[in-house]
Amino acid sequence: MAEDKDTLYAMRHSLAHIMATAVQHLWPEVKLGVGPVVEDGFYYDIDLGDETLSNEDFGRIEEEMRAIIASAQPFEQFMMPINEALDWARKYSQPYKEELLHDLQREGTTLAKDLNTAMMGLPAGILGATSPVAITEVSFYRNGDFTDLCRGPHVEATNKVGAFKLTRVAGAYWRGKESNPQMQRVYGLAFATPKELRQHLDMLEEAKKRDHRKLGQELDLYITSDLVGSGLPLFTPRGTVLREELTTFSNSLRENYDFQKVWTPHMTKKDLYEASGHWAKFGDELFLVKSQETSDELVLKPMNCPHHTRIYASQPRSYRDLPIRYLETTTDYRDEKTGELGGLNRVRALTQDDSHVFCRQDQIETEINNLLSCARDLYSTVGMDLRVRLSYRDESDAYLGDEKLWESAQAQLKAAVVANKLTFFEQEGEAAFYGPKIDFMATDAIGREHQLATVQLDFVQPDRFGLEYTAEDGSAQQPVMIHSALLGSIERFLSVYIEHTAGKFPVWCAPEQVRILSVNQEPETIQFVENLRTMGKELGLRIAMDNSNESVGKKIRAAEIWKVPYVIVAGEKEIGGGELVPRIRKDLVVHDESKSYTAHEFLQTVANEAKSRVGKTSM
Amino acid sequence: MAEDKDTLYAMRHSLAHIMATAVQHLWPEVKLGVGPVVEDGFYYDIDLGDETLSNEDFGRIEEEMRAIIASAQPFEQFMMPINEALDWARKYSQPYKEELLHDLQREGTTLAKDLNTAMMGLPAGILGATSPVAITEVSFYRNGDFTDLCRGPHVEATNKVGAFKLTRVAGAYWRGKESNPQMQRVYGLAFATPKELRQHLDMLEEAKKRDHRKLGQELDLYITSDLVGSGLPLFTPRGTVLREELTTFSNSLRENYDFQKVWTPHMTKKDLYEASGHWAKFGDELFLVKSQETSDELVLKPMNCPHHTRIYASQPRSYRDLPIRYLETTTDYRDEKTGELGGLNRVRALTQDDSHVFCRQDQIETEINNLLSCARDLYSTVGMDLRVRLSYRDESDAYLGDEKLWESAQAQLKAAVVANKLTFFEQEGEAAFYGPKIDFMATDAIGREHQLATVQLDFVQPDRFGLEYTAEDGSAQQPVMIHSALLGSIERFLSVYIEHTAGKFPVWCAPEQVRILSVNQEPETIQFVENLRTMGKELGLRIAMDNSNESVGKKIRAAEIWKVPYVIVAGEKEIGGGELVPRIRKDLVVHDESKSYTAHEFLQTVANEAKSRVGKTSM
Repeated sequence: MAEDKDTLYAMRHSLAHIMATAVQHLWPEVKLGVGPVVEDGFYYDIDLGDETLSNEDFGRIEEEMRAIIASAQPFEQFMMPINEALDWARKYSQPYKEELLHDLQREGTTLAKDLNTAMMGLPAGILGATSPVAITEVSFYRNGDFTDLCRGPHVEATNKVGAFKLTRVAGAYWRGKESNPQMQRVYGLAFATPKELRQHLDMLEEAKKRDHRKLGQELDLYITSDLVGSGLPLFTPRGTVLREELTTFSNSLRENYDFQKVWTPHMTKKDLYEASGHWAKFGDELFLVKSQETSDELVLKPMNCPHHTRIYASQPRSYRDLPIRYLETTTDYRDEKTGELGGLNRVRALTQDDSHVFCRQDQIETEINNLLSCARDLYSTVGMDLRVRLSYRDESDAYLGDEKLWESAQAQLKAAVVANKLTFFEQEGEAAFYGPKIDFMATDAIGREHQLATVQLDFVQPDRFGLEYTAEDGSAQQPVMIHSALLGSIERFLSVYIEHTAGKFPVWCAPEQVRILSVNQEPETIQFVENLRTMGKELGLRIAMDNSNESVGKKIRAAEIWKVPYVIVAGEKEIGGGELVPRIRKDLVVHDESKSYTAHEFLQTVANEAKSRVGKTSM
Repeated sequence: MAEDKDTLYAMRHSLAHIMATAVQHLWPEVKLGVGPVVEDGFYYDIDLGDETLSNEDFGRIEEEMRAIIASAQPFEQFMMPINEALDWARKYSQPYKEELLHDLQREGTTLAKDLNTAMMGLPAGILGATSPVAITEVSFYRNGDFTDLCRGPHVEATNKVGAFKLTRVAGAYWRGKESNPQMQRVYGLAFATPKELRQHLDMLEEAKKRDHRKLGQELDLYITSDLVGSGLPLFTPRGTVLREELTTFSNSLRENYDFQKVWTPHMTKKDLYEASGHWAKFGDELFLVKSQETSDELVLKPMNCPHHTRIYASQPRSYRDLPIRYLETTTDYRDEKTGELGGLNRVRALTQDDSHVFCRQDQIETEINNLLSCARDLYSTVGMDLRVRLSYRDESDAYLGDEKLWESAQAQLKAAVVANKLTFFEQEGEAAFYGPKIDFMATDAIGREHQLATVQLDFVQPDRFGLEYTAEDGSAQQPVMIHSALLGSIERFLSVYIEHTAGKFPVWCAPEQVRILSVNQEPETIQFVENLRTMGKELGLRIAMDNSNESVGKKIRAAEIWKVPYVIVAGEKEIGGGELVPRIRKDLVVHDESKSYTAHEFLQTVANEAKSRVGKTSM
């Protein structure tokens, strides 16, 4: 399995080189940026001067790529002293490679690491960095007439690359910085076999229909505004219902385990993050806030844990008081690059259903157990399968905190995962530096896996903030912190959930649960519709009416476009006191459509359905 | 009444001069700043060099003031050319007066206006500014051996000033700017009669006991943190219950009238406020946000209306769709001066229970009617009397929008106020430039009046943002906006409400509604207590238990300190299946204390009480 993954990686990376080869054949003046492997494929950043690629060019490039593949050129690695490599870059007019080599020469492996963080998807090996500090020579790969600065690995020859397809071209600033030149990023998909590629393309076709940006607009869930800015969506009444229902549910699950809500401001003095250590690590990802009245150095909070430690620390705590469990759904701000913002998937204002437990070491397992049970309930209700990754430390010295505590904590995490009968796998070296963690992978209706919820232990912040409790023997002890979010970021969760449901939300969170259509404009019809609406509202339903002067057929189609779960047509029979035969959205399998109800019976049934959060859709 | 107010104003302002006279007698080197009238009295900013006044000095100053009062010195006004006034300031070593005169000479009445805004409580008349543009001469007042730059008015002579008392001294930056020298601000109370002064002092004594900063700490409602910064309180679990209960209630009242929740981010590009016109007016009160990744010019939102117009404008709207009613409880950020921040009364993070109606002109009255009814319900539930001020335009040209629309709107406001049987008074010239408004004054349990809720019409933002709807005749029409907040800022509301209730919150919003005390540590006692707690939780109650190894008396006293509404002592009788006789907090008048209940009966009663929001406390 691990070997397959490595092979696929080499195939994809080799395809990036093959694409660059093809582009260089077609546009000999091309300046190349970087060409990493990404999920499901690869890309290469290219600079063609004033010429803009269009999808029509893909045919030519693919044709040329196929010729290169057919000629089975071997991939050959060779090393070059860095000064010679610079000469090479200059000779072949490759200024981006030259810049990388320059920086690499000056900053050594420090830069190589930075590039990994700063440049989307750039894999550790794309640069020739192998030595631990200064870099004296770098690695190149050659295939046919094409040579590229590259650590590899590659497949043996160009004909061993599986199936591929170029998919799109997008603008991308060189090294992700707005002040740098804009390049063209050409994306390709790549899989080991044509069948896998075909399946993936089918999935993409389905995903396109469900695209949350498209549905977000069609179902009027959120808007964006040029005046407000990118990555800052505004939620309409319908979208706000989804936000509220999902967070209320997520909160209620934890409130059952005695989590208590707290509230903290969105802004803080920088001092808080200096104390927590986040400033040193993530200072450049924060939005800086300038007061015009004072000299305070303020920032927008990118996370809530340091704030919550302040509440914990505001009172003396005894072993009897623990666990203390804080819950806060609040918006964090992260300075994402504009180019990476889109829809709800990546935003600058992300609302987290965040929680922090402060507990004794012997309480870890129970607390993890509770949180796992919450996550399980939430994901089974939204109809997604969960599997979890247990992320442990490895033998390196990258981890802070007592080693025995790590061991005991890792064992407690695993015990809780086993007790909750969750599918899991274990991975060493994937822990955060401050503690082991559990990452939840949720599979959506079209088979894509998303990392949403997380449970993380933290041995470091309690130490940095000097948090304490008085143990039974009177000694001062340090609590453990457990960070957890079930939905994760609500915006990102919604981007997944809208596509998972294709906008056919189950009744409990549907923005509009019932719509009543009048068959005509007669006063008694309108009165009947209004009475029904009042009855529904009193039952706590989100119920709308359509009394417009349109045909019933048109009204029914309108309700279908809005994906309203239940539609009641108020015709003569219904008004005359007869029973209702509601129209039920196709995916809802909990009712017998032929059954008829009195109005109150039916509305009560829907209210019960919403309350118990059943009505999982069959998607 | 208006005359009495003017007389009181003159008395207070004259006392500021008398205090300055006394201080100059005692400290001849004193440099004087400004000495305006404030609510209930006056202050004067003085600079005594290195010497710091203490409350002990008040006796000496008051004694000297009484001598000046007894000598019945007449107040005499005279004018002086501004150049001579500058000579006067230099001659008597009054650098602050000199600076004011300088600025006044340079900037004329523009400055006089600026000073009103920029300097807390500085009344329009404190400077000699009378001419509309350039200022050539200024007004002085003399009493005995004391002369001050001052427009007045004053009482006839120093013996006509009623009753006064110096109360406190506080640091204050000259002209409110951190970079300026710090002065000492000496405050005095002043009333027309000794009786009124005594009543006011008694009220202050009571207010001190109820001080929300003191109770906030004792009842663990909120904390502040040096690491987070001033004006940015963090709410503990108990304080968060209050926030949530109050906002849920406020929202539910409007949801009954089909208000729909929306959600908008706390940050926006500056462009939004340039479009709305707020940037030009309030630009210097905004927190500026700097992105380290992009060149976006961002700010924290100080209000929500421009955001809400974006949602309105995101779809075409027809006359049938109106009114559209948005509701959002969200936190706004305002760059208040550090010196003005304290407790929850004035904060930099203020959460508003904000709403905006977009409606047709003929819908104003009904919409106002609904909002008034919400405000009436809310304030009667929290037990505060309301009166309202109807703020109209005057004949000046300070108002934007069609005059006929103003007239009709003002008439509709008044009709709604009358229909709601609210006590009201009308005031011309108090409207906002963008529309007439209703300000609500709520009287608390010790007779203080607070301006909290507000309903404001707005004819200007719909115009600036080009908002439209299609009228029945197909023409494009402009909607009217109605801004409203019922609690106002939740933080400020809480500062009032904590003091209004003295921390004895009614059951519906009490952070802890019931506490169960175990009489011993026997397993069956603990079990009984835990069962009771589970039963309470299932009924939705906030119920706590005290199983600590303390005496019952001590536990009861602890519950009293926390002002818990109901306390159940779990003794042998109760555990044996006997009935409960709950201990009821004294102010709760809705139960018969001698009555006994089964455990479930009692808890159900409390749950009903909470649900119906009865249990108004008798304070």
